[in-house]
Amino acid sequence: MMTGVTTLPEDLTTDLHDLYRHLHAHPELSMQESATAELIEERMGALGYETTRIGGTGVVAVLTNGEGPVIGFRADTDGLPVAEATGLDYASTDRGTLPDGTDVPVMHACGHDTHMTAAIGAATLLQQSRESWSGTVVLVFQPGEETAAGAVAMLEDGLWDKVPRPEVMFAQHLSADLAGTVNLSTGPALAMADSLEVVVHGRGGHGSRPESTIDPVVLAAHMIVRLQSLVSRELAAQDAAVLTVATIHAGMKENIIPAEAVFTINVRTLDERVRQQVLAGIRRIVSAEAAASGAPEPEVRELYTFPLVHNDEETSAAVTEVLVAALGADRVSPRVPQMGSEDFGALPEAIGVPGVYWFFGGLPQDVIDLPEPTPSNHSPFFAPVLEPTLSTATTAAYEVIRSRLG
Amino acid sequence: MMTGVTTLPEDLTTDLHDLYRHLHAHPELSMQESATAELIEERMGALGYETTRIGGTGVVAVLTNGEGPVIGFRADTDGLPVAEATGLDYASTDRGTLPDGTDVPVMHACGHDTHMTAAIGAATLLQQSRESWSGTVVLVFQPGEETAAGAVAMLEDGLWDKVPRPEVMFAQHLSADLAGTVNLSTGPALAMADSLEVVVHGRGGHGSRPESTIDPVVLAAHMIVRLQSLVSRELAAQDAAVLTVATIHAGMKENIIPAEAVFTINVRTLDERVRQQVLAGIRRIVSAEAAASGAPEPEVRELYTFPLVHNDEETSAAVTEVLVAALGADRVSPRVPQMGSEDFGALPEAIGVPGVYWFFGGLPQDVIDLPEPTPSNHSPFFAPVLEPTLSTATTAAYEVIRSRLG
Amino acid sequence: MMTGVTTLPEDLTTDLHDLYRHLHAHPELSMQESATAELIEERMGALGYETTRIGGTGVVAVLTNGEGPVIGFRADTDGLPVAEATGLDYASTDRGTLPDGTDVPVMHACGHDTHMTAAIGAATLLQQSRESWSGTVVLVFQPGEETAAGAVAMLEDGLWDKVPRPEVMFAQHLSADLAGTVNLSTGPALAMADSLEVVVHGRGGHGSRPESTIDPVVLAAHMIVRLQSLVSRELAAQDAAVLTVATIHAGMKENIIPAEAVFTINVRTLDERVRQQVLAGIRRIVSAEAAASGAPEPEVRELYTFPLVHNDEETSAAVTEVLVAALGADRVSPRVPQMGSEDFGALPEAIGVPGVYWFFGGLPQDVIDLPEPTPSNHSPFFAPVLEPTLSTATTAAYEVIRSRLG
Amino acid sequence: MMTGVTTLPEDLTTDLHDLYRHLHAHPELSMQESATAELIEERMGALGYETTRIGGTGVVAVLTNGEGPVIGFRADTDGLPVAEATGLDYASTDRGTLPDGTDVPVMHACGHDTHMTAAIGAATLLQQSRESWSGTVVLVFQPGEETAAGAVAMLEDGLWDKVPRPEVMFAQHLSADLAGTVNLSTGPALAMADSLEVVVHGRGGHGSRPESTIDPVVLAAHMIVRLQSLVSRELAAQDAAVLTVATIHAGMKENIIPAEAVFTINVRTLDERVRQQVLAGIRRIVSAEAAASGAPEPEVRELYTFPLVHNDEETSAAVTEVLVAALGADRVSPRVPQMGSEDFGALPEAIGVPGVYWFFGGLPQDVIDLPEPTPSNHSPFFAPVLEPTLSTATTAAYEVIRSRLG
Repeated sequence: MMTGVTTLPEDLTTDLHDLYRHLHAHPELSMQESATAELIEERMGALGYETTRIGGTGVVAVLTNGEGPVIGFRADTDGLPVAEATGLDYASTDRGTLPDGTDVPVMHACGHDTHMTAAIGAATLLQQSRESWSGTVVLVFQPGEETAAGAVAMLEDGLWDKVPRPEVMFAQHLSADLAGTVNLSTGPALAMADSLEVVVHGRGGHGSRPESTIDPVVLAAHMIVRLQSLVSRELAAQDAAVLTVATIHAGMKENIIPAEAVFTINVRTLDERVRQQVLAGIRRIVSAEAAASGAPEPEVRELYTFPLVHNDEETSAAVTEVLVAALGADRVSPRVPQMGSEDFGALPEAIGVPGVYWFFGGLPQDVIDLPEPTPSNHSPFFAPVLEPTLSTATTAAYEVIRSRLG
Repeated sequence: MMTGVTTLPEDLTTDLHDLYRHLHAHPELSMQESATAELIEERMGALGYETTRIGGTGVVAVLTNGEGPVIGFRADTDGLPVAEATGLDYASTDRGTLPDGTDVPVMHACGHDTHMTAAIGAATLLQQSRESWSGTVVLVFQPGEETAAGAVAMLEDGLWDKVPRPEVMFAQHLSADLAGTVNLSTGPALAMADSLEVVVHGRGGHGSRPESTIDPVVLAAHMIVRLQSLVSRELAAQDAAVLTVATIHAGMKENIIPAEAVFTINVRTLDERVRQQVLAGIRRIVSAEAAASGAPEPEVRELYTFPLVHNDEETSAAVTEVLVAALGADRVSPRVPQMGSEDFGALPEAIGVPGVYWFFGGLPQDVIDLPEPTPSNHSPFFAPVLEPTLSTATTAAYEVIRSRLG
Repeated sequence: MMTGVTTLPEDLTTDLHDLYRHLHAHPELSMQESATAELIEERMGALGYETTRIGGTGVVAVLTNGEGPVIGFRADTDGLPVAEATGLDYASTDRGTLPDGTDVPVMHACGHDTHMTAAIGAATLLQQSRESWSGTVVLVFQPGEETAAGAVAMLEDGLWDKVPRPEVMFAQHLSADLAGTVNLSTGPALAMADSLEVVVHGRGGHGSRPESTIDPVVLAAHMIVRLQSLVSRELAAQDAAVLTVATIHAGMKENIIPAEAVFTINVRTLDERVRQQVLAGIRRIVSAEAAASGAPEPEVRELYTFPLVHNDEETSAAVTEVLVAALGADRVSPRVPQMGSEDFGALPEAIGVPGVYWFFGGLPQDVIDLPEPTPSNHSPFFAPVLEPTLSTATTAAYEVIRSRLG
Repeated sequence: MMTGVTTLPEDLTTDLHDLYRHLHAHPELSMQESATAELIEERMGALGYETTRIGGTGVVAVLTNGEGPVIGFRADTDGLPVAEATGLDYASTDRGTLPDGTDVPVMHACGHDTHMTAAIGAATLLQQSRESWSGTVVLVFQPGEETAAGAVAMLEDGLWDKVPRPEVMFAQHLSADLAGTVNLSTGPALAMADSLEVVVHGRGGHGSRPESTIDPVVLAAHMIVRLQSLVSRELAAQDAAVLTVATIHAGMKENIIPAEAVFTINVRTLDERVRQQVLAGIRRIVSAEAAASGAPEPEVRELYTFPLVHNDEETSAAVTEVLVAALGADRVSPRVPQMGSEDFGALPEAIGVPGVYWFFGGLPQDVIDLPEPTPSNHSPFFAPVLEPTLSTATTAAYEVIRSRLG
């Protein structure tokens, strides 16, 4: 049986719940988190933190409280182009515009709203307890995590020249685990990710005369089918890899064979050798399939790359101890490396300090027990419960940061 | 060697060329041909024809010239959502809005601009020669041929109650054959067409965790690949059929496995038995492939159906004679049934009169001789030469109509 | 309603039925028709024909009966490696040995037993009626039709130097049509056929370690799937073509990934342009699919080719007249070109004389009416009824040959 | 740098090399190891071991040497239907007959010859050193490992009633690692394996008339392609699984579409949940693909199952210590669980005692360093070097057994 849930002061709880519902209802797309950034600046300023805009919509909030260690913590702020289907009364109905001009619905489908809420909660607790510690807290509210653009943008905008450099960086992420629990791995924590766009060139024509065309839709279908064999037959069973084709777009009219089809590939790997093997295999297969159709060489464009998130071994052991003390041993568990990806790793790496990244659950037991697969991150049905999710995440962030201060 | 090309009066030629370039530069999407309809009304009114708006953007122009037969001729008026790539100085840069709200480029990529031009040319010649014949000419400028919506719309709007009913209907269409030639078949002329939309339901989720999803993109790819076997293995070699998947759309973001994929199928057949076999096979295959993925039953929606265009045997023999007399025997040839489709057939069928439909070429010999496949109808590169295309089409329309009048 | 069936003298009927049952029960594989050849020599010798062995197991039987035209007729003699499943009391239980040493069951699953029986029946009628005609009858009992080896073998063995050259050649073939009927086309009658063997080279290894192998089974499956698109997307609907992969063999043990897979392709076309397009497409696709697997270039070996069987227009009109007169107009019908193939065409072509080839049905109405697809040629269930099949075929052969004699 | 290789007495080395070359040159198929069994009986009898035939061609050799522990060791004895291509002067040219009557080449392609040689070598050392220990050694020479038939056959024939029951069982296996090294895992050591046969029912017919058939070859190809998505999309990246289709056989003649195709599937998993998911997925996919072809339900037959080989944690730690002491720490390494399978696990499981299973390398450094993938177990090119392979394996077996005796 699990030990009793962590509780926060009632007024803080009420405040964080209101904040969370507001953030959830008003998500913004990656690198467009303007209203979110303003809200963070306002909240953190009110708490006495000094805020700096870095990387467009990034905000760093610093609380200097005498001599002592500088400790970093990062929360990410962007939503996703997902049409929320949770039916919650604070569900998002907001829309946004993708860089290519497409108007899309937006949803905090990956829980970044919980990340911001918990960070602000921890910031509040740190501010309230500032007589008991000394040092500097650096809270990084990072935009554009979903597109791998945000960490890079903040670094390129001089992040570590503009604010005190921490000696260690922490971050946490909502997961489809039991609310009230946290878990973390040692060593590899999150996978490398590579996103590619494949432009399949055929030759368009009338739908009734395929013989005068090179059909890019059938060709793209063959490519997608053929890519499955790359995972199923070319990698060892022990080599973890995911190859997802999540988008495909071709054609405007059902009786016009289009001249091209475009699809995107997302690759996850934990090992550089496997990564290189998969990336080379993709290029080999799409090129050969085009040749099988007598089509021109397709274009394969790299969209972005996420680095590995690696949990420093010594630091993650110390973090585990803190979390066990704060939450109880039955609410802290180890985790195998996940195939999800993050650009968090770039922040500590840029200044050569260790980083640790943990997960906190957000689902009630009855949802986890459903016979249906549980809606997970990025699902339009992903709906974390407010408690004990937010109090646990707030406590975890506060206790870990606090443990490193003087 | 081919006999000398047909020539029209110089001022008519100049006028038709200007008209054609204007129409080509300003195409309108199906059932949105408002400016085109206004132009037709103006031109036909100026020629003394009485015009009636039928079916929204349809125009019927009637010239009554004493007692005698009522002869019908139809020209279609809509463009296509194709981005013109001909590089012509009168190329279209106009855009339109599809019924689903998508903004798209528009092009007269199927030659309906030549159809209108030739019909107006023939109308001019008929008006000029009205002392030599008696009877009634009914010129039907039909919208929405590409979506099979126009003939039905005109019929439902009371076409044959509002204008005189012809005893025979004619129509002609531009083809990727040699400019200056015409050709026609006896019996089946154009295929039946069925357009279907398949909505593939999966279960969405994070791109790194396919195990929590049912991937609709891989499923759709398997469906598309599997449908090829329907044509290659289930039909006799002598059973003409085309199954085209011309559009597929799924996913908004490369790391989010979407919950569904949507593709459209276009089927062409010349025989009702084969048609039923293909339509049943499509439903069998998409249903079974969904089962292979453990996915919900996909939806298969009928978008529209084109009827067979059937050339009445006696009438087409008479038309062939007229065309041979007008153009020379070396410029008139027989044609096997084509897999293209038309809603023209619905117009004579509705009143039980015979119809005949012929093609006129639009390409110069040097384009036809290119080693590369010739850009055909619906290609962004389809560029008919003005002459002898327009004079031949005008002459053909005029002579055939004239031959049936008193 | 069909006119009354043709009847033969009762003793001839009894004799032909016995002969047919014997031939059916004792089929021999292509180019191994030794016992069959001996039986033919014996029967034809007894009828007063002069027999010559040509091409190993081929027999030509000549009846010279005064001055006059030389008329050729060919019947083929080989069975197939099919395990008969008809349940008939004269079903074959014989076995044979393929060239590669494999022991297989053998069945007259293509009706060559009816061809021989009808030819011997016609030979009997010709011998019995020899006072009414003059000229020379050349009956060619050809081996190895199924492998396209027999006509070539007879020609290479000097067929037309060893026996009188006919001025016209005829042949007939059993079909899955109504017994008692015949049918024939004008122009193309039977398709060209090309058989190819594809040797797919991979790299073998342990079934648990695909990463150390190149899996030739998955590669061959991708090739076979991909070849379907060649028929479905690269040919016009009006271009008749069949591409069949009828055999595939790979692997000896379920936990050893083999080093290669071998499959055979059979292509049928009616037009040399289409044939070349399909053959080139096969090579393009298997080569590109091997590249998609990172496998060595596969081998594509031509096994054999069948020529087009072309029915001379004038002669087939004359044959039709004779058949109508002999059988009644309701038992003679036209036929579209068939995708089946034959090496018969090589025999008249070699000496530049016209040929005509017709079909005779072998199934009773109730079998044709079954809701299940009718067992057709090469099926283990193909079971023609003796009558009116044999009397019709005998009469057709006799009347057509007789009509050309003096 | 690696410590000096283990050396055995020169006469024993010579003897073992001769024995190995003989065994390698004369492999026998699973459950047909008669000559091998006789040779083992002769050799072990000469060493003073008491031998018993169990399970047909299984041999157990027991050396009782006073009071003390009973220690078991198993060596497997069968070869594989692989055509040896090593070019060695002692390469096998022997052939065998599979249960279905097929004549095949046979090769010790999985190193069972090294297993027997090292077991006989260790037996010799144990016999020679019998004054230094007391207890009972039970050497199990097990047939039919490759088909999972041997361990079951010995158990069903009363193995543990006929010979003393050991308190622990060991076994070792040749791997494609560096000769002179050994390695082992803790916990799961070797995967579960399931072999299935799929009989795909179609409807046969003539190769030119696919429309009258249901093509089982194209259907089987679609199944094989579709099964790839089961591994690539339905399992988590961290769930190790292999699905191999190693054999497929269909058709006898390139122009006869066969009525069925037969292929075999081999599945490897480390976790019962994943195993059940894959087995259920296979049945779902082959059933649905048959439905997609309108074909009858295919048959899926279980051929055999291998259990997990699980290395007892305490015992494997002790074994590691012994190996490090005997061979040097640089020649002993840990290993991740392998996807290969074994029926060894059934022997200790049957009497509830712990088991440990380790690997010994057999390749020289220069072969491992080749740019080409190294020929691994079951490859026709797999060629272990005699030394230090055999002395290392002999020493490992001897030292581990010896360490458990009194």
